[in-house]
Amino acid sequence: MIQFNVEGMTCQHCVAAVTRAIHERDAAAQVQVDLQAGRVSVQSNQSADALKAAIDDAGYTVVGTVGA
Amino acid sequence: MIQFNVEGMTCQHCVAAVTRAIHERDAAAQVQVDLQAGRVSVQSNQSADALKAAIDDAGYTVVGTVGA
Repeated sequence: MIQFNVEGMTCQHCVAAVTRAIHERDAAAQVQVDLQAGRVSVQSNQSADALKAAIDDAGYTVVGTVGA
Repeated sequence: MIQFNVEGMTCQHCVAAVTRAIHERDAAAQVQVDLQAGRVSVQSNQSADALKAAIDDAGYTVVGTVGA
């Protein structure tokens, strides 16, 4: 489980966009987004760097990572 | 041209969702969204009520209408 603190998520469309971006890298990933807290929790076989890149590419900014 | 003041649009996904909702009622509608101002300007053959309903159904709240 990796947790990312993400800036720029403002609504449920953003939640869907981030979730979709992660699923494009790993269709089997488990993704939970806490919109209020700006936190994305991911269980995946992808590296933290790859997941961070997916979130960044979707147009959001990862400002912190917890776990590996 | 009708202008709607709309609450709840927070990001470009919201702009796209509102635009899409209006285009579902009138594919030829001209839609301009000012996200910062919360304003949706529409040139369409649809009534103001029909356009308002489209915006509402997309999950946003029309709080004011200018023009008809």
